[in-house]
Amino acid sequence: MKNTLKIVKIGGNIIDDAVALTTFLIDFATIKSPKILVHGGGKLATRLADDLQIPVNMIDGRRVTDQQTLDVITMVYAGKINKNIVAQLQAQDCNAIGFTGADGNTIIAVKRPVQEVDYGFVGDVEQVKTSTLELLLTNNITPIFCAITHDTKGQLLNTNADTIAAELAIAFASSYDVSLYYCFEKNGVLKNVDDEESVIDHIDTKSYKSLLETGVIANGMLPKLNNCFHALNNNVQTVCIGQTSMLFNKNSKHTTMVL
Amino acid sequence: MKNTLKIVKIGGNIIDDAVALTTFLIDFATIKSPKILVHGGGKLATRLADDLQIPVNMIDGRRVTDQQTLDVITMVYAGKINKNIVAQLQAQDCNAIGFTGADGNTIIAVKRPVQEVDYGFVGDVEQVKTSTLELLLTNNITPIFCAITHDTKGQLLNTNADTIAAELAIAFASSYDVSLYYCFEKNGVLKNVDDEESVIDHIDTKSYKSLLETGVIANGMLPKLNNCFHALNNNVQTVCIGQTSMLFNKNSKHTTMVL
Repeated sequence: MKNTLKIVKIGGNIIDDAVALTTFLIDFATIKSPKILVHGGGKLATRLADDLQIPVNMIDGRRVTDQQTLDVITMVYAGKINKNIVAQLQAQDCNAIGFTGADGNTIIAVKRPVQEVDYGFVGDVEQVKTSTLELLLTNNITPIFCAITHDTKGQLLNTNADTIAAELAIAFASSYDVSLYYCFEKNGVLKNVDDEESVIDHIDTKSYKSLLETGVIANGMLPKLNNCFHALNNNVQTVCIGQTSMLFNKNSKHTTMVL
Repeated sequence: MKNTLKIVKIGGNIIDDAVALTTFLIDFATIKSPKILVHGGGKLATRLADDLQIPVNMIDGRRVTDQQTLDVITMVYAGKINKNIVAQLQAQDCNAIGFTGADGNTIIAVKRPVQEVDYGFVGDVEQVKTSTLELLLTNNITPIFCAITHDTKGQLLNTNADTIAAELAIAFASSYDVSLYYCFEKNGVLKNVDDEESVIDHIDTKSYKSLLETGVIANGMLPKLNNCFHALNNNVQTVCIGQTSMLFNKNSKHTTMVL
Protein backbone atom coordinates (compact mmCIF):
# COMPACT_ATOMS: atom_id res chain seq x y z
CA MET A 1 0.00 0.00 0.00
CA LYS A 2 1.28 3.44 -0.89
CA ASN A 3 1.71 6.23 1.61
CA THR A 4 -0.58 9.24 1.43
CA LEU A 5 0.72 12.56 0.12
CA LYS A 6 -1.39 15.69 0.43
CA ILE A 7 -0.68 18.52 -1.99
CA VAL A 8 -2.41 21.74 -1.04
CA LYS A 9 -2.61 24.85 -3.19
CA ILE A 10 -3.58 28.16 -1.59
CA GLY A 11 -4.33 31.38 -3.43
CA GLY A 12 -4.71 35.10 -2.96
CA ASN A 13 -7.62 34.98 -0.50
CA ILE A 14 -5.30 33.35 2.05
CA ILE A 15 -1.98 34.92 1.02
CA ASP A 16 -3.34 38.47 1.16
CA ASP A 17 -4.94 38.07 4.60
CA ALA A 18 -2.32 37.77 7.34
CA VAL A 19 -4.76 36.38 9.92
CA ALA A 20 -6.25 33.84 7.49
CA LEU A 21 -2.74 32.76 6.45
CA THR A 22 -1.55 32.22 10.01
CA THR A 23 -4.75 30.34 10.91
CA PHE A 24 -4.33 28.13 7.86
CA LEU A 25 -0.65 27.44 8.54
CA ILE A 26 -1.40 26.41 12.14
CA ASP A 27 -3.92 23.89 10.75
CA PHE A 28 -1.68 22.82 7.88
CA ALA A 29 1.14 22.02 10.31
CA THR A 30 -1.13 19.48 12.04
CA ILE A 31 -1.42 17.31 8.90
CA LYS A 32 0.38 14.12 9.86
CA SER A 33 0.99 12.64 6.40
CA PRO A 34 3.69 13.84 4.01
CA LYS A 35 2.51 17.11 2.49
CA ILE A 36 3.50 19.80 0.02
CA LEU A 37 2.17 23.36 -0.02
CA VAL A 38 1.94 25.39 -3.24
CA HIS A 39 1.16 29.07 -3.01
CA GLY A 40 0.26 31.75 -5.51
CA GLY A 41 1.27 35.36 -5.20
CA GLY A 42 -1.85 37.30 -4.32
CA LYS A 43 -1.93 41.04 -4.74
CA LEU A 44 1.50 41.72 -3.27
CA ALA A 45 3.34 41.43 -6.59
CA THR A 46 0.95 43.85 -8.28
CA ARG A 47 1.34 46.27 -5.39
CA LEU A 48 5.14 46.11 -5.54
CA ALA A 49 5.11 46.59 -9.33
CA ASP A 50 2.85 49.63 -8.82
CA ASP A 51 5.14 51.05 -6.14
CA LEU A 52 8.12 50.61 -8.47
CA GLN A 53 6.12 52.11 -11.34
CA ILE A 54 6.67 49.02 -13.45
CA PRO A 55 3.97 49.12 -16.11
CA VAL A 56 1.53 46.20 -16.13
CA ASN A 57 1.18 44.75 -19.60
CA MET A 58 -1.92 42.56 -19.90
CA ILE A 59 -2.84 40.66 -23.05
CA ASP A 60 -6.17 38.82 -23.08
CA GLY A 61 -6.34 39.12 -19.31
CA ARG A 62 -2.89 37.62 -18.83
CA ARG A 63 0.08 39.43 -17.44
CA VAL A 64 3.13 39.65 -19.68
CA THR A 65 6.24 38.76 -17.66
CA ASP A 66 9.10 41.00 -18.79
CA GLN A 67 12.44 41.03 -16.93
CA GLN A 68 11.33 43.66 -14.42
CA THR A 69 8.09 41.80 -13.73
CA LEU A 70 9.97 38.52 -13.30
CA ASP A 71 12.23 40.22 -10.75
CA VAL A 72 9.19 41.49 -8.86
CA ILE A 73 7.59 38.06 -8.90
CA THR A 74 10.80 36.39 -7.75
CA MET A 75 11.18 38.87 -4.91
CA VAL A 76 7.58 38.62 -3.75
CA TYR A 77 6.79 34.94 -4.35
CA ALA A 78 10.14 33.29 -3.56
CA GLY A 79 11.24 35.96 -1.09
CA LYS A 80 8.63 37.66 1.02
CA ILE A 81 5.69 35.24 0.81
CA ASN A 82 7.58 31.94 0.68
CA LYS A 83 10.03 32.71 3.48
CA ASN A 84 7.34 34.08 5.77
CA ILE A 85 5.32 30.90 5.26
CA VAL A 86 8.40 28.80 6.01
CA ALA A 87 9.19 30.78 9.18
CA GLN A 88 5.59 30.53 10.38
CA LEU A 89 5.51 26.77 9.79
CA GLN A 90 8.75 26.35 11.73
CA ALA A 91 7.02 28.11 14.62
CA GLN A 92 4.42 25.30 14.46
CA ASP A 93 7.12 22.59 14.49
CA CYS A 94 6.52 21.84 10.83
CA ASN A 95 9.97 21.54 9.27
CA ALA A 96 9.50 23.36 5.97
CA ILE A 97 11.87 24.27 3.14
CA GLY A 98 10.94 26.84 0.50
CA PHE A 99 11.24 25.89 -3.16
CA THR A 100 11.10 27.29 -6.63
CA GLY A 101 11.36 24.75 -9.43
CA ALA A 102 15.02 25.75 -9.74
CA ASP A 103 15.78 24.58 -6.20
CA GLY A 104 16.85 20.96 -6.38
CA ASN A 105 16.08 21.13 -10.12
CA THR A 106 12.60 20.00 -9.13
CA ILE A 107 10.38 21.60 -11.81
CA ILE A 108 11.70 22.10 -15.31
CA ALA A 109 9.70 24.29 -17.67
CA VAL A 110 10.03 25.64 -21.20
CA LYS A 111 9.56 29.32 -21.96
CA ARG A 112 6.23 29.61 -23.72
CA PRO A 113 6.97 29.91 -27.44
CA VAL A 114 6.16 33.27 -28.98
CA GLN A 115 3.20 32.83 -31.31
CA GLU A 116 0.66 35.61 -31.68
CA VAL A 117 1.58 36.87 -28.23
CA ASP A 118 4.93 37.03 -26.44
CA TYR A 119 4.12 36.39 -22.78
CA GLY A 120 7.76 36.88 -21.84
CA PHE A 121 9.29 34.80 -19.05
CA VAL A 122 6.35 32.45 -18.61
CA GLY A 123 7.09 28.74 -18.31
CA ASP A 124 5.05 25.67 -19.17
CA VAL A 125 5.98 22.67 -17.01
CA GLU A 126 7.89 19.98 -18.88
CA GLN A 127 9.19 17.71 -16.11
CA VAL A 128 8.95 17.28 -12.35
CA LYS A 129 11.86 15.52 -10.64
CA THR A 130 10.72 13.93 -7.41
CA SER A 131 13.87 12.29 -5.99
CA THR A 132 15.09 15.22 -3.85
CA LEU A 133 11.56 15.97 -2.71
CA GLU A 134 10.98 12.32 -1.75
CA LEU A 135 14.22 12.39 0.23
CA LEU A 136 12.88 15.37 2.16
CA LEU A 137 9.36 13.97 2.59
CA THR A 138 10.71 10.72 4.02
CA ASN A 139 12.71 12.82 6.47
CA ASN A 140 9.55 14.62 7.62
CA ILE A 141 10.40 17.83 5.78
CA THR A 142 7.64 19.76 4.01
CA PRO A 143 8.42 21.48 0.68
CA ILE A 144 6.73 24.85 0.15
CA PHE A 145 6.51 25.77 -3.53
CA CYS A 146 6.02 29.20 -5.00
CA ALA A 147 4.89 29.64 -8.60
CA ILE A 148 8.33 29.87 -10.20
CA THR A 149 10.11 27.26 -12.33
CA HIS A 150 13.31 27.25 -14.39
CA ASP A 151 14.50 26.14 -17.81
CA THR A 152 17.75 24.43 -16.59
CA LYS A 153 19.70 27.04 -18.57
CA GLY A 154 19.73 29.64 -15.82
CA GLN A 155 16.38 31.28 -16.55
CA LEU A 156 13.65 31.52 -13.91
CA LEU A 157 10.12 31.37 -15.31
CA ASN A 158 6.74 32.52 -14.00
CA THR A 159 4.40 29.50 -13.89
CA ASN A 160 0.78 29.16 -12.85
CA ALA A 161 0.51 27.85 -9.27
CA ASP A 162 -2.51 25.64 -10.05
CA THR A 163 -0.49 23.97 -12.79
CA ILE A 164 2.49 23.46 -10.49
CA ALA A 165 0.24 21.78 -7.92
CA ALA A 166 -1.27 19.47 -10.57
CA GLU A 167 2.11 18.55 -12.08
CA LEU A 168 3.58 17.81 -8.64
CA ALA A 169 0.57 15.62 -7.86
CA ILE A 170 0.94 13.72 -11.13
CA ALA A 171 4.68 13.22 -10.66
CA PHE A 172 4.15 11.70 -7.20
CA ALA A 173 1.18 9.54 -8.20
CA SER A 174 3.37 6.52 -8.94
CA SER A 175 4.94 6.48 -5.46
CA TYR A 176 2.17 7.92 -3.26
CA ASP A 177 -1.62 7.97 -2.99
CA VAL A 178 -1.89 11.64 -3.83
CA SER A 179 -4.72 13.92 -2.73
CA LEU A 180 -4.75 17.33 -4.40
CA TYR A 181 -6.60 20.22 -2.76
CA TYR A 182 -7.29 23.48 -4.56
CA CYS A 183 -8.20 26.02 -1.89
CA PHE A 184 -9.86 29.24 -2.99
CA GLU A 185 -12.38 31.79 -1.76
CA LYS A 186 -15.53 29.79 -2.52
CA ASN A 187 -17.01 26.66 -0.99
CA GLY A 188 -16.42 24.74 -4.20
CA VAL A 189 -17.73 24.79 -7.74
CA LEU A 190 -21.06 26.60 -7.48
CA LYS A 191 -24.18 26.03 -9.58
CA ASN A 192 -25.02 29.65 -8.96
CA VAL A 193 -21.90 31.79 -8.53
CA ASP A 194 -23.78 34.12 -6.16
CA ASP A 195 -24.98 31.35 -3.87
CA GLU A 196 -22.29 29.80 -1.65
CA GLU A 197 -24.77 27.08 -0.70
CA SER A 198 -25.10 25.86 -4.29
CA VAL A 199 -21.92 23.76 -4.11
CA ILE A 200 -21.78 20.85 -6.55
CA ASP A 201 -20.66 17.89 -4.39
CA HIS A 202 -19.18 15.81 -7.20
CA ILE A 203 -18.20 16.57 -10.76
CA ASP A 204 -17.30 13.71 -13.08
CA THR A 205 -16.14 13.82 -16.68
CA LYS A 206 -19.68 13.59 -17.97
CA SER A 207 -21.23 16.23 -15.72
CA TYR A 208 -18.19 18.45 -16.38
CA LYS A 209 -19.02 18.45 -20.08
CA SER A 210 -22.61 19.39 -19.42
CA LEU A 211 -21.55 22.15 -16.97
CA LEU A 212 -19.27 23.52 -19.66
CA GLU A 213 -22.03 23.43 -22.25
CA THR A 214 -24.51 25.22 -20.01
CA GLY A 215 -21.91 27.86 -19.14
CA VAL A 216 -21.95 27.14 -15.39
CA ILE A 217 -18.16 26.74 -15.51
CA ALA A 218 -16.47 29.62 -17.24
CA ASN A 219 -13.71 32.20 -16.96
CA GLY A 220 -11.22 31.61 -14.16
CA MET A 221 -12.65 28.23 -13.19
CA LEU A 222 -11.97 26.65 -16.56
CA PRO A 223 -8.18 26.23 -16.31
CA LYS A 224 -8.54 25.19 -12.64
CA LEU A 225 -10.95 22.39 -13.53
CA ASN A 226 -8.87 21.38 -16.52
CA ASN A 227 -5.95 20.96 -14.10
CA CYS A 228 -8.17 18.80 -11.89
CA PHE A 229 -9.10 16.40 -14.67
CA HIS A 230 -5.54 16.41 -16.00
CA ALA A 231 -4.45 15.22 -12.53
CA LEU A 232 -7.21 12.59 -12.25
CA ASN A 233 -6.42 11.30 -15.72
CA ASN A 234 -2.83 10.81 -14.59
CA ASN A 235 -3.42 8.65 -11.52
CA VAL A 236 -3.89 11.31 -8.87
CA GLN A 237 -6.23 9.65 -6.36
CA THR A 238 -8.36 12.53 -5.10
CA VAL A 239 -8.90 16.10 -6.27
CA CYS A 240 -10.99 18.56 -4.23
CA ILE A 241 -11.88 22.24 -4.63
CA GLY A 242 -13.14 24.49 -1.87
CA GLN A 243 -12.16 26.55 1.17
CA THR A 244 -9.18 25.49 3.28
CA SER A 245 -11.69 24.21 5.88
CA MET A 246 -12.31 21.15 3.65
CA LEU A 247 -8.88 19.90 4.75
CA PHE A 248 -9.65 19.94 8.45
CA ASN A 249 -13.42 19.57 8.80
CA LYS A 250 -15.14 16.59 7.24
CA ASN A 251 -18.47 18.44 7.20
CA SER A 252 -17.09 21.40 5.27
CA LYS A 253 -18.77 21.67 1.87
CA HIS A 254 -16.52 21.28 -1.15
CA THR A 255 -16.45 19.82 -4.63
CA THR A 256 -14.80 16.46 -5.26
CA MET A 257 -13.73 15.78 -8.82
CA VAL A 258 -14.03 12.22 -10.08
CA LEU A 259 -13.42 10.56 -13.43
CA MET B 1 39.41 10.55 7.82
CA LYS B 2 36.75 13.19 7.49
CA ASN B 3 35.41 14.40 4.16
CA THR B 4 36.23 17.90 3.01
CA LEU B 5 33.55 20.61 3.10
CA LYS B 6 34.19 23.97 1.47
CA ILE B 7 32.17 26.93 2.70
CA VAL B 8 32.49 29.97 0.47
CA LYS B 9 31.19 33.43 1.29
CA ILE B 10 30.83 35.99 -1.50
CA GLY B 11 30.02 39.66 -1.08
CA GLY B 12 28.87 42.73 -2.93
CA ASN B 13 31.75 42.91 -5.40
CA ILE B 14 30.55 39.64 -6.95
CA ILE B 15 26.78 39.94 -6.31
CA ASP B 16 26.57 43.41 -7.87
CA ASP B 17 28.48 42.45 -11.03
CA ALA B 18 26.45 40.10 -13.24
CA VAL B 19 29.46 39.00 -15.30
CA ALA B 20 31.65 38.41 -12.24
CA LEU B 21 28.84 36.46 -10.59
CA THR B 22 28.29 34.19 -13.58
CA THR B 23 32.04 33.62 -13.97
CA PHE B 24 32.31 32.75 -10.29
CA LEU B 25 29.33 30.38 -10.36
CA ILE B 26 30.74 28.50 -13.35
CA ASP B 27 33.95 27.98 -11.36
CA PHE B 28 32.13 27.23 -8.11
CA ALA B 29 30.12 24.49 -9.82
CA THR B 30 33.37 22.67 -10.66
CA ILE B 31 34.26 22.18 -6.98
CA LYS B 32 34.04 18.42 -6.50
CA SER B 33 33.82 18.23 -2.73
CA PRO B 34 30.67 18.99 -0.74
CA LYS B 35 30.23 22.76 -0.63
CA ILE B 36 28.02 25.50 0.73
CA LEU B 37 27.75 29.03 -0.68
CA VAL B 38 26.85 32.00 1.52
CA HIS B 39 26.03 35.31 -0.12
CA GLY B 40 25.52 38.83 1.11
CA GLY B 41 23.13 41.29 -0.43
CA GLY B 42 25.24 43.87 -2.22
CA LYS B 43 23.73 47.16 -3.24
CA LEU B 44 20.46 45.75 -4.58
CA ALA B 45 18.63 45.98 -1.24
CA THR B 46 19.66 49.60 -0.77
CA ARG B 47 18.55 50.38 -4.31
CA LEU B 48 15.15 48.73 -3.81
CA ALA B 49 14.67 50.55 -0.48
CA ASP B 50 15.50 53.81 -2.27
CA ASP B 51 13.05 53.06 -5.08
CA LEU B 52 10.35 52.32 -2.53
CA GLN B 53 11.30 55.47 -0.59
CA ILE B 54 11.90 53.46 2.55
CA PRO B 55 14.07 55.66 4.76
CA VAL B 56 17.48 54.26 5.67
CA ASN B 57 18.10 54.50 9.38
CA MET B 58 21.79 54.10 10.22
CA ILE B 59 23.13 54.09 13.76
CA ASP B 60 26.90 53.97 14.24
CA GLY B 61 27.27 52.90 10.60
CA ARG B 62 24.84 50.01 11.01
CA ARG B 63 21.50 49.74 9.29
CA VAL B 64 18.45 49.47 11.52
CA THR B 65 16.17 46.70 10.23
CA ASP B 66 12.58 47.79 10.68
CA GLN B 67 9.70 45.72 9.24
CA GLN B 68 9.81 47.45 5.84
CA THR B 69 13.57 46.98 5.61
CA LEU B 70 13.27 43.33 6.61
CA ASP B 71 10.73 42.85 3.81
CA VAL B 72 13.12 44.45 1.32
CA ILE B 73 16.00 42.28 2.50
CA THR B 74 13.87 39.13 2.35
CA MET B 75 12.75 39.98 -1.19
CA VAL B 76 16.21 40.84 -2.47
CA TYR B 77 18.40 38.34 -0.60
CA ALA B 78 16.11 35.28 -0.43
CA GLY B 79 14.22 36.10 -3.63
CA LYS B 80 16.07 37.82 -6.42
CA ILE B 81 19.71 37.12 -5.57
CA ASN B 82 19.35 33.65 -4.07
CA LYS B 83 17.05 32.22 -6.74
CA ASN B 84 19.11 33.62 -9.60
CA ILE B 85 22.21 32.01 -8.11
CA VAL B 86 20.36 28.69 -7.75
CA ALA B 87 19.10 28.84 -11.36
CA GLN B 88 22.57 29.67 -12.68
CA LEU B 89 24.15 26.81 -10.73
CA GLN B 90 21.55 24.38 -12.08
CA ALA B 91 22.63 25.49 -15.56
CA GLN B 92 26.12 24.29 -14.58
CA ASP B 93 24.81 20.92 -13.36
CA CYS B 94 25.36 21.92 -9.76
CA ASN B 95 22.23 20.81 -7.92
CA ALA B 96 21.61 23.75 -5.58
CA ILE B 97 18.85 24.58 -3.12
CA GLY B 98 18.41 28.08 -1.70
CA PHE B 99 18.23 28.52 2.05
CA THR B 100 17.46 31.04 4.72
CA GLY B 101 18.06 29.88 8.28
CA ALA B 102 14.29 29.30 8.52
CA ASP B 103 14.39 26.69 5.74
CA GLY B 104 14.90 23.32 7.35
CA ASN B 105 15.22 25.17 10.69
CA THR B 106 18.93 25.31 9.88
CA ILE B 107 20.04 28.55 11.57
CA ILE B 108 18.34 29.73 14.73
CA ALA B 109 19.05 33.25 15.93
CA VAL B 110 17.91 35.55 18.70
CA LYS B 111 16.74 39.08 18.01
CA ARG B 112 19.47 41.35 19.25
CA PRO B 113 18.38 42.68 22.64
CA VAL B 114 17.59 46.40 22.75
CA GLN B 115 20.26 48.12 24.80
CA GLU B 116 21.38 51.61 23.89
CA VAL B 117 20.31 51.01 20.32
CA ASP B 118 17.35 49.07 18.88
CA TYR B 119 18.66 47.52 15.67
CA GLY B 120 15.23 46.05 14.93
CA PHE B 121 14.96 42.66 13.24
CA VAL B 122 18.63 41.76 13.47
CA GLY B 123 19.52 38.27 14.64
CA ASP B 124 22.56 36.87 16.39
CA VAL B 125 23.16 33.20 15.60
CA GLU B 126 22.39 30.88 18.49
CA GLN B 127 22.40 27.42 16.89
CA VAL B 128 23.10 25.76 13.55
CA LYS B 129 21.32 22.47 12.87
CA THR B 130 23.30 20.42 10.40
CA SER B 131 21.24 17.23 9.95
CA THR B 132 19.11 18.35 6.99
CA LEU B 133 22.09 20.01 5.36
CA GLU B 134 24.21 16.86 5.78
CA LEU B 135 21.41 14.83 4.21
CA LEU B 136 21.56 17.14 1.20
CA LEU B 137 25.36 17.28 1.02
CA THR B 138 25.62 13.49 1.03
CA ASN B 139 23.14 13.49 -1.86
CA ASN B 140 25.33 15.86 -3.84
CA ILE B 141 23.08 18.87 -3.29
CA THR B 142 24.63 22.27 -2.60
CA PRO B 143 22.93 24.60 -0.10
CA ILE B 144 23.01 28.31 -1.01
CA PHE B 145 22.52 30.54 2.04
CA CYS B 146 21.42 34.13 2.07
CA ALA B 147 21.95 36.29 5.13
CA ILE B 148 18.61 35.67 6.83
CA THR B 149 17.89 33.56 9.92
CA HIS B 150 14.83 33.00 12.10
CA ASP B 151 13.94 32.86 15.77
CA THR B 152 11.81 29.63 15.57
CA LYS B 153 8.78 31.72 16.60
CA GLY B 154 7.90 32.84 13.07
CA GLN B 155 10.18 35.86 12.84
CA LEU B 156 12.79 36.20 10.09
CA LEU B 157 15.94 38.07 11.13
CA ASN B 158 18.63 39.94 9.22
CA THR B 159 22.01 38.37 10.04
CA ASN B 160 25.52 39.20 8.90
CA ALA B 161 26.62 36.90 6.05
CA ASP B 162 30.22 36.60 7.34
CA THR B 163 28.85 35.40 10.67
CA ILE B 164 26.55 32.89 8.99
CA ALA B 165 29.50 31.46 7.05
CA ALA B 166 31.60 31.16 10.23
CA GLU B 167 28.80 29.57 12.25
CA LEU B 168 28.04 27.05 9.47
CA ALA B 169 31.76 26.20 9.31
CA ILE B 170 31.94 25.68 13.07
CA ALA B 171 28.80 23.54 13.16
CA PHE B 172 30.19 21.22 10.46
CA ALA B 173 33.71 21.02 11.95
CA SER B 174 32.92 17.89 13.95
CA SER B 175 31.80 15.91 10.89
CA TYR B 176 33.90 17.43 8.07
CA ASP B 177 37.32 18.93 7.48
CA VAL B 178 35.97 22.41 6.86
CA SER B 179 37.69 25.07 4.76
CA LEU B 180 36.14 28.53 5.03
CA TYR B 181 36.77 31.09 2.28
CA TYR B 182 35.88 34.75 2.67
CA CYS B 183 35.88 36.24 -0.82
CA PHE B 184 35.94 40.01 -1.16
CA GLU B 185 37.29 42.72 -3.45
CA LYS B 186 40.90 42.64 -2.27
CA ASN B 187 43.67 40.09 -2.64
CA GLY B 188 43.65 39.44 1.09
CA VAL B 189 44.55 41.34 4.22
CA LEU B 190 46.83 44.13 3.02
CA LYS B 191 49.73 45.72 4.90
CA ASN B 192 49.03 48.85 2.90
CA VAL B 193 45.36 49.18 1.99
CA ASP B 194 46.28 51.02 -1.25
CA ASP B 195 48.72 48.34 -2.43
CA GLU B 196 47.10 45.12 -3.68
CA GLU B 197 50.57 43.54 -3.74
CA SER B 198 51.06 44.00 0.00
CA VAL B 199 49.07 40.87 0.88
CA ILE B 200 49.94 39.32 4.23
CA ASP B 201 50.32 35.59 3.44
CA HIS B 202 49.63 34.29 6.94
CA ILE B 203 48.13 35.83 10.03
CA ASP B 204 48.29 33.96 13.32
CA THR B 205 46.91 34.91 16.71
CA LYS B 206 50.13 36.66 17.67
CA SER B 207 50.61 38.66 14.48
CA TYR B 208 46.87 39.49 14.53
CA LYS B 209 47.33 41.21 17.88
CA SER B 210 50.25 43.22 16.60
CA LEU B 211 48.37 44.16 13.41
CA LEU B 212 45.49 45.36 15.58
CA GLU B 213 47.84 47.41 17.77
CA THR B 214 49.54 49.07 14.83
CA GLY B 215 46.16 49.88 13.27
CA VAL B 216 46.78 47.90 10.05
CA ILE B 217 43.51 46.06 10.65
CA ALA B 218 40.63 48.38 11.32
CA ASN B 219 37.09 49.27 10.36
CA GLY B 220 35.30 46.72 8.20
CA MET B 221 38.08 44.14 8.42
CA LEU B 222 37.83 43.79 12.18
CA PRO B 223 34.58 41.79 12.42
CA LYS B 224 35.66 39.69 9.40
CA LEU B 225 38.93 38.71 11.05
CA ASN B 226 37.21 38.12 14.36
CA ASN B 227 34.93 35.67 12.53
CA CYS B 228 38.02 33.96 11.09
CA PHE B 229 39.64 33.38 14.47
CA HIS B 230 36.30 32.43 16.02
CA ALA B 231 36.08 29.69 13.35
CA LEU B 232 39.70 28.55 13.83
CA ASN B 233 39.24 28.44 17.58
CA ASN B 234 36.27 26.12 17.03
CA ASN B 235 37.96 23.43 14.96
CA VAL B 236 37.52 24.84 11.46
CA GLN B 237 40.52 23.50 9.58
CA THR B 238 41.36 26.30 7.15
CA VAL B 239 40.27 29.93 6.84
CA CYS B 240 41.31 32.08 3.87
CA ILE B 241 40.55 35.65 2.80
CA GLY B 242 40.98 37.01 -0.71
CA GLN B 243 39.51 37.19 -4.19
CA THR B 244 37.42 34.27 -5.49
CA SER B 245 40.43 33.28 -7.62
CA MET B 246 42.08 31.83 -4.49
CA LEU B 247 39.60 28.96 -4.73
CA PHE B 248 40.59 27.93 -8.24
CA ASN B 249 44.18 29.06 -8.72
CA LYS B 250 46.85 27.89 -6.32
CA ASN B 251 49.10 30.81 -7.26
CA SER B 252 46.47 33.42 -6.47
CA LYS B 253 47.57 35.59 -3.60
CA HIS B 254 45.45 35.47 -0.46
CA THR B 255 45.69 35.54 3.31
CA THR B 256 45.55 32.31 5.27
CA MET B 257 44.55 32.61 8.89
CA VAL B 258 46.20 30.25 11.37
CA LEU B 259 46.06 29.85 15.13
